[in-house]
Amino acid sequence: MFGSDIVGRPLAEVDTPALVIDADAMERNIARMAEFFAGRHAGLRPHSKTHKSPVIAQKQLDAGAVGITCAKLGEAEALVEGGIRDILIANQIIGRQKIARLVGLARHADIAVAVDDPENAHQISDAAVAAGSSVRVLVEVNVGMDRCGVEPGAPALRLAEQIAQLPGLHFFGIQSYEGHLVMFKGHQAREERVREAIAPVIETRQLIESAGIPVTVITGGGTGTFDITSRIDGFDEIQAGSYVFMDASYGEVEGPGAVFEPALYLWSTIVSRPTAERAVADIGLKTATSDHGFPVLADFRDSTTISLSEEHAKLRLEGEARELRSGDKVRFQPGHVCTTVNLHDRYVVVRNDVVEAVWPVAGRGRSQ
Amino acid sequence: MFGSDIVGRPLAEVDTPALVIDADAMERNIARMAEFFAGRHAGLRPHSKTHKSPVIAQKQLDAGAVGITCAKLGEAEALVEGGIRDILIANQIIGRQKIARLVGLARHADIAVAVDDPENAHQISDAAVAAGSSVRVLVEVNVGMDRCGVEPGAPALRLAEQIAQLPGLHFFGIQSYEGHLVMFKGHQAREERVREAIAPVIETRQLIESAGIPVTVITGGGTGTFDITSRIDGFDEIQAGSYVFMDASYGEVEGPGAVFEPALYLWSTIVSRPTAERAVADIGLKTATSDHGFPVLADFRDSTTISLSEEHAKLRLEGEARELRSGDKVRFQPGHVCTTVNLHDRYVVVRNDVVEAVWPVAGRGRSQ
Repeated sequence: MFGSDIVGRPLAEVDTPALVIDADAMERNIARMAEFFAGRHAGLRPHSKTHKSPVIAQKQLDAGAVGITCAKLGEAEALVEGGIRDILIANQIIGRQKIARLVGLARHADIAVAVDDPENAHQISDAAVAAGSSVRVLVEVNVGMDRCGVEPGAPALRLAEQIAQLPGLHFFGIQSYEGHLVMFKGHQAREERVREAIAPVIETRQLIESAGIPVTVITGGGTGTFDITSRIDGFDEIQAGSYVFMDASYGEVEGPGAVFEPALYLWSTIVSRPTAERAVADIGLKTATSDHGFPVLADFRDSTTISLSEEHAKLRLEGEARELRSGDKVRFQPGHVCTTVNLHDRYVVVRNDVVEAVWPVAGRGRSQ
Repeated sequence: MFGSDIVGRPLAEVDTPALVIDADAMERNIARMAEFFAGRHAGLRPHSKTHKSPVIAQKQLDAGAVGITCAKLGEAEALVEGGIRDILIANQIIGRQKIARLVGLARHADIAVAVDDPENAHQISDAAVAAGSSVRVLVEVNVGMDRCGVEPGAPALRLAEQIAQLPGLHFFGIQSYEGHLVMFKGHQAREERVREAIAPVIETRQLIESAGIPVTVITGGGTGTFDITSRIDGFDEIQAGSYVFMDASYGEVEGPGAVFEPALYLWSTIVSRPTAERAVADIGLKTATSDHGFPVLADFRDSTTISLSEEHAKLRLEGEARELRSGDKVRFQPGHVCTTVNLHDRYVVVRNDVVEAVWPVAGRGRSQ
């Protein structure tokens, strides 16, 4: 495996498989999203599940983000270790050991966490009091993804009231993620569905505020809906993540597909050329993922990834790609950046085809 | 994340998600496979891509395995670092940097590698001579998976003749993997297909031997075909891997499904119970995989995993599973053990519900 000794060398010399960031493209994506949010009421709280890197999170904050989102407590710890100070964990933190870590972490950073169960809220409260810390708590509201969360309306109000009374907790607002709609086909149809799904959350906000409990934020949204949720009155924070790198699947979603550009690649070697049309590359399910479709050859768009086994990508080559020989190196755009990054220990950061840095994927493996 | 301080503690106290080995079940699987191979001509060369652990590889050798298989050069290095000395890399090793590592490694262990291209054979030969080492080389022959490999017959003979003449290389035999057939439905139909696919390889062996070049081994096969390939005259080594842990997908394949038992689990916490039927567990695509189907609740077989998002498994509970509450811990059997293990840094080894050891997944991330 390469170390930081590759810095300053041409990308062509970097061995494969490797996870490569196009630094210019990533910085353009961060700037474009920042430009969109400039002057708006809604703020951007980028989801770091995509990059798992405090270095990149800091760039997003420098560009104006209001804080950072993550999925796991271990990721939040990695962010704090990397100097990030305002972190929203968009999930439930369950169990004695994790709650102890949560309230400990809240002594060193501003932490928010989602809750959908009063018993869990009581446990966090007890631990926070014992640790002398304070945790911001969001009621997670189900907006149709039917995963976690209480229903909008009375159930959400009831939980908010309980949280507001518990010591060591600061009731922060509502977590609501329309994950089932972020890739809904057709921008107008997507907007209609999202507005319909979010309407009960806005009503719930009014319900909670009418009960005398301030709602600081409604937070949610993603790369597929950032330009919709950010325009809904009463929606405050957008947790878009994928925009920083984009991927083949989001590239096909109208809206983000037109605004952001691919900034993450799998650097790969052709390891076999058995026939004129067939090539095999050295990425597979252990270095890429197929949950949103196969990685695709970035520089030979008419060629096709036929299958992905554990350590092989089988390709059907068309046109000039047929000149690829065993040993040649190629770039793949991942099908899904979030799950692909999770397979790698480090990024090779490249500008003008030269390696500029090697960054750890600091949150990888921090799944607890 | 837990460390070795959990050794001696009850599994119930281990935080989640965690990758758990049932030590008794794993040892029974290793013993059953060893028993099958005892007294046979064909030997077992277990594929370590499944476990990526030299500790487990050593157990397989202790039970009679003739050597170990792996997929990547980095995995071979991890095996050598863990004390393993006879290693077959069942893939092409391409490029100057990797070939330098390959011939270096061959000074410290008996290494075999697959080749399907004469230029690659020449490069390995040149490097081996320069390093003063010797590498065993297999001609990879395509048996219908249409991935890497030369065609059987004359093309394989031609490559074998070239390899046999090159200094620093020891022509070792034929690598042939019928990966497209290992899960073929119906044991008898599978056996017919496998025998048909392997017949040209056996003929190729005769062709090469008729040219005066000794063929030490034909090596290939998997958990789905070990009892077929091992009975084919002229087939010498079986590279089964999954049998050591089994998984939900292989459990449905007649033959191995009846012989081996599940020995690997994802230890998980229920983090949300929004409705009577719905539960959400804290495993997802970043701790489990879906390429051979979703992980399934091991102790509540009538319940169903409906979806797997990045950090959540959504479950439809039936029967007594409906009594599961938030905070309860459950065992999942992975859909595909090989890709699931690849997501974890360590194993929690459990016997009689007590943690006996914590082992690193030494080959994880060694994808180069």
